[in-house]
This record gives sequence, structure tokens and C-alpha cells, in this order.
Amino acid sequence: MNPMIEVVYLVKSAPADIAARAEGILLEQAVELPRSVLHDDFVLNHIVGEVRSIVPHTSGEYRVTIAHPAETAGNDPAQLLNVLFGNTSLQPDVLLEDVRLPASVVASLGGPRFGIEGIRKACGVTSGALTSTALKPMGLSVEKLSAICSTFARAGIDLIKDDHGLADHAFCPFEERVRACVDATRRAAQETGRQSLYVPNLIGTPTQVLHQLRFAQGAGVGGVMISPMLLGLPLLREIVESELSVPLLAHPSFGGALRITPEALLGRLFRWFGADAVIYPNYGGRFTYSKETCGRLADLLRQSGDALKPVFPMPAGGIKIERLGETIAFYGSDVMLLIGGSLYEAGEAPDALLERAKLFVAAARK
Amino acid sequence: MNPMIEVVYLVKSAPADIAARAEGILLEQAVELPRSVLHDDFVLNHIVGEVRSIVPHTSGEYRVTIAHPAETAGNDPAQLLNVLFGNTSLQPDVLLEDVRLPASVVASLGGPRFGIEGIRKACGVTSGALTSTALKPMGLSVEKLSAICSTFARAGIDLIKDDHGLADHAFCPFEERVRACVDATRRAAQETGRQSLYVPNLIGTPTQVLHQLRFAQGAGVGGVMISPMLLGLPLLREIVESELSVPLLAHPSFGGALRITPEALLGRLFRWFGADAVIYPNYGGRFTYSKETCGRLADLLRQSGDALKPVFPMPAGGIKIERLGETIAFYGSDVMLLIGGSLYEAGEAPDALLERAKLFVAAARK
Repeated sequence: MNPMIEVVYLVKSAPADIAARAEGILLEQAVELPRSVLHDDFVLNHIVGEVRSIVPHTSGEYRVTIAHPAETAGNDPAQLLNVLFGNTSLQPDVLLEDVRLPASVVASLGGPRFGIEGIRKACGVTSGALTSTALKPMGLSVEKLSAICSTFARAGIDLIKDDHGLADHAFCPFEERVRACVDATRRAAQETGRQSLYVPNLIGTPTQVLHQLRFAQGAGVGGVMISPMLLGLPLLREIVESELSVPLLAHPSFGGALRITPEALLGRLFRWFGADAVIYPNYGGRFTYSKETCGRLADLLRQSGDALKPVFPMPAGGIKIERLGETIAFYGSDVMLLIGGSLYEAGEAPDALLERAKLFVAAARK
Repeated sequence: MNPMIEVVYLVKSAPADIAARAEGILLEQAVELPRSVLHDDFVLNHIVGEVRSIVPHTSGEYRVTIAHPAETAGNDPAQLLNVLFGNTSLQPDVLLEDVRLPASVVASLGGPRFGIEGIRKACGVTSGALTSTALKPMGLSVEKLSAICSTFARAGIDLIKDDHGLADHAFCPFEERVRACVDATRRAAQETGRQSLYVPNLIGTPTQVLHQLRFAQGAGVGGVMISPMLLGLPLLREIVESELSVPLLAHPSFGGALRITPEALLGRLFRWFGADAVIYPNYGGRFTYSKETCGRLADLLRQSGDALKPVFPMPAGGIKIERLGETIAFYGSDVMLLIGGSLYEAGEAPDALLERAKLFVAAARK
């Protein structure tokens, strides 16, 4: 039997129409032709999959599970997305809820290079929640951003990343920033004995991003970050397969533009494509992901039953230092807490930011 | 005064909350920090834009126009997307309705290389609607697909593209297919005196796609197609800026634009990033775009007031040959009609497909 890719959609439909609608989705996602005009044996036996089940979900909505032969994806990460949600993404009655890949497709994707274990090793922290923060706001000079980086490193924050809006701006050029921030974390390490990971944001066209990757790794960064939905998920796969030598964080920016559940996109696809840690909006902050969604994301990212490495959930977007205990209780210790705004509330007094960052580290280590 | 990027959002909000919500979006899309912690003069004067207007739209919804300084986009197409809809895409109360770029940003993007004029020249058709179709279904061998390509070329169809689901599958390898289809159109041209453009689908990781582009152009294709939302919009820009020597079609696959209007994504961004023709679901077919949306898409794609080339609208997705007159009356003659399924209904009789494709060409030329 062919290995099959199973896709679960939530489809709005009248009861009388759902069988035809499910058949329509099956065909749209592979052959894009009505069944009546399909004559080729190979197409019928190896390309056209089947509707596996249609189950009433909520009123007026059905959970439809469709199976496509793995061959349709052609060992190509971009074509896999095409099969999962290419044309059907343009139809407003359909939400992509979940995806189940056969072991052969999971293996051909390859997943993350480092995962939780690799990031813990890079940070030198074998247990407990990890701490991370972002350098911002966009508009600060290299000098000012690297001074903030130095402060966070001296406070002992494990991972210090660029805000995802830091590009190669004239007022804060990428290479200069990377050199200054790596240097800042190294100097802080001489003082504290602990090396924080500096993680720059890679952004631009694919060739620019690959150039930035080489430069950053050569300069000694502790990891890199990309926004796969801005840059294209296939570029994530290419980076992981080709030259990546440090852990990779994935940022969800631009990811809400598609009608895919956070679980399927951030929880499954980002990890399958190779992210070592996935940033997502935590419950109760500026975004509206529910506590249940966040719990499921963490579970999906930390799973290992599919032979890929478990990766770090990085809840973010409005976590308060004062709420850390609750957050750690919810996620357990295999979590990388990403706090930005709540640190920057420190005020401008000398060492105020350092003291507040130390509070963060102490609360996470408790 | 700084040139500004204007973004129009439709925001669901209670009347008492909309001012704060608009301010929240403004900050989220640039500095990602509350205004109270912003102290840097450059940030306040050159990065933080302004809420330009808040106008009641429908009940419980407001049209919010936000202006960001052009500097925030840093002359980077990926960062531009970040500024337009990065984190805000993750908030379910916001739809990106429209974007207005200052001339400097439009010029730095650069837009399409060929546009309507270049495609007409490549086709040798100076006036009237152009005809196009797709090679499918996925699963056919190179031999069978190139035989269909030959039939369409002999019928005089202007542009014959791969279905967007044709990748580099083992059962139909990319390079072999490209060679066979170019050859098929050349042989047909010797018979008919008219050269159809064969347009392969480029898909994979960015490096694979660039390799496919080089191979295809070297083999003499008449154009290339990509799905920018699958591969990443920045790759579209890179292709256009670097090595493109034939017209480029953009396919909307994976574009599930429920949170970005089709007008903003397909009508504006795809053209700004460099597509010479944009495929979109026509009204009345398998998809649900309204006639009004399709009319606006055509107008947006064919505009030239911004100093970029006008590009071809390519309505698709269920157009019937029998409805062509109405479709051409609606769009006028600067349109490339994309018909697939309605041709493949021809049946299996010898020459049935050829005759039906000739009907299509004749109906379009009327």
C-alpha cells in the first residue's frame, strides 16, 4: 500500500452537499480536474487519493479527512504545501486543521537539526526553563542596540534575539549589528562566566538571507532567526539542509495570512521544516491564542514519537515577569520564555534594565 | 517630509476601544513596544508613524489607515511585508484591506519586467484577448503531457503552462518535461506558423527554483510560473531582479487570502513584486471571488499610473468555453483567459481535444 499524506479540513457545508464538497477538495488538491475526465491508470491508482472520513463537527461544519498518496508531494517541501492547501486555501469555506505525514515523508523533510537538546547544550543549561528576550525597537543605532544586548547578557539571559523587524536598515546595518552584539555577549561572558547566545534576524530575498546566514555564523552568533511565512517555508528547509551550524528560531510573522490552524502551521509544519524553536503568541497577552491552543502547540513542538527532535516552544507577546511562575507551571521546564516589552518597562535609570533582566532570570531559574 | 507607506486595515472593535486598538496596530507593526517606553529621538521621529484616520465601516468594524515611514521597510521586500502585516496578521480582528506605497518604495521594488506589452510581443498578438491553458493532471508521463502540449499548440493557444501541481516528480521529471514541451511547441509552430509559449512551473527550495529557472530559460521556454505564496514573495523579487529573461506568471496557490484582501495581495503586491501576469479565481467558477472583486483585480493589475508596467489579469478556475463572450465583454481585450478543465472535457476521441482547443482560440479571437 502507498504511504499516504492525511489532511484534515474543517469544511462549512449543507448536509446534502458535503460528500460532493469533500470529493471536490480531494480533486482540487491533486489533479485539478473532474473525475469524469481522468483516464490514465497511473493517475487513478497513484495520484488520486481518497476521502477517508466525513464527520459532523459543529453545526454546519464537517471534519473531512482526505488522504493523498505521498508521491504527489514529489519529495519537495514546496510541493508538499501545494498538496496540503494550494488552491483550497482560496476557498473560504475550508480551514486546514491538521496534517499527518507518513514516516517516509517526515524522513525526507528531515526536521530540526538541533532541537531542545542542541539548544540546551548551546546555552549550557541542562534543566529548567530558558530565558530569552528581543533587541528593540527598530530605529535604534547599532551602538544603542548592542548596549542593550550587553545589559541582557550581563543579566544572564540565555538567548538574546533581534526583534523580527530588525532588517538591514541604513540606520542599523546587519553586519555591523551582528559583530557588535556578538562582541557584547563575549565581553559579558568574561564578566559573568556565562555565554549568552546572540541570535540575529535574517531577512531579505533568499540569496540575501543565505549571505546573512554565512556572515552571522562566521561572526560567531549563537543561533539565527527567520520568519518562514515572510521568506517562504521552502527557504527554511534549504537553510537547515545546507549550511546551518547553529540553532534556528522560527518567528510567526505574516503567518496569520493563511487559513491554517496555529497547531498545523506553527506546531507541525514549522518543526517538520526544521525550526529548533518556534515563537508563538502566548495566551493572555496582546494576541488571542487560547490557553488550550498554546498547550497543544507546546505538546506538538516537544513531541518525539515521529523520530524528529523535539523543539522548544517559545511563548511570547506580552508575558509579564510578574506572571512567570504561572507560565512555567503551565508549560513545565522545557520552554524558552521570550520576554521583551515587560523588560523594557524598566525605565531609563542607570542599571534599571539590568536589574529587571536579572529579575527575569532569577524568576525563571526558581 | 518623510515618504510614508499607508496601510488600510478593517478592524473589528467596540467604539470605545478603536482609538487604542489603532494605536496598538501602529506600534505592533514597527517598534513592538508601548509608546511609554520609547525614548529615542530617531525612533520617535523616523520610525513610529501615525494613525491617519479611523472611519466607521460596517457595524462593529472600522477602516483604519496607518502610515509608516518608508524607512521602516529598509529597501527590503521581505521587511516591507513585515511592516504591512507581520505580527498583526496573527490578530483575528484585523483584515489588511489595502496598501499605498510612496513612489520611492514602488521604484525600489521595481515591479514587473515585461507586463502586458512584453507578453503580447512574446506571443505575437498585438490586440484581443490572449488564450492560455494548463497541462494536467499531475501523474501523466512526460510523453503524455507533451503530447497534450503539442495538441494545444497546434490549436493555436497562445500560452501553455504547467499545472501548478507539476513539480519535479519521479514520474514526470522537470528537465525532461521542459525539453519535451518546448520541442512540442516548436514542432507545432513549423506546422501552424505560430509559436505558442510553453511556461513551466518552478517549485522547490529557492536554490532549486533558481536552478530550474536557468535550465528552463536555456531550453527556450516562453515564460515561467511560480506560486509566490508557496515559495515566498521575496523569491519572486529576487528572480525578477536577477536572471529573468522571459515573462513570469504568478499563481495564487497557498495564498488563502482571508486575512488579506485579494485586491491587496494579488492585485497590488504580486505586481509590485514583479509578476507579469497574475492568475486568480474568476467569478462564477469553482471559487467564490465576486464579479466586483474580479473587476477590481483586473483594474489594479492593468494600472500604469504608478510608473510600473501594467500586467495581464489571468482569470481562471472553471471558465467554460461557452461563457467566453461574457468573460471578454467583462474584462475587455487586455486579458489572458486561462481555461483548463473545460478543454479536458473534450473526451478521448482522436482530435477531440484539438478541436475543443481550436474552439477556445476561435471564441477568444472573435
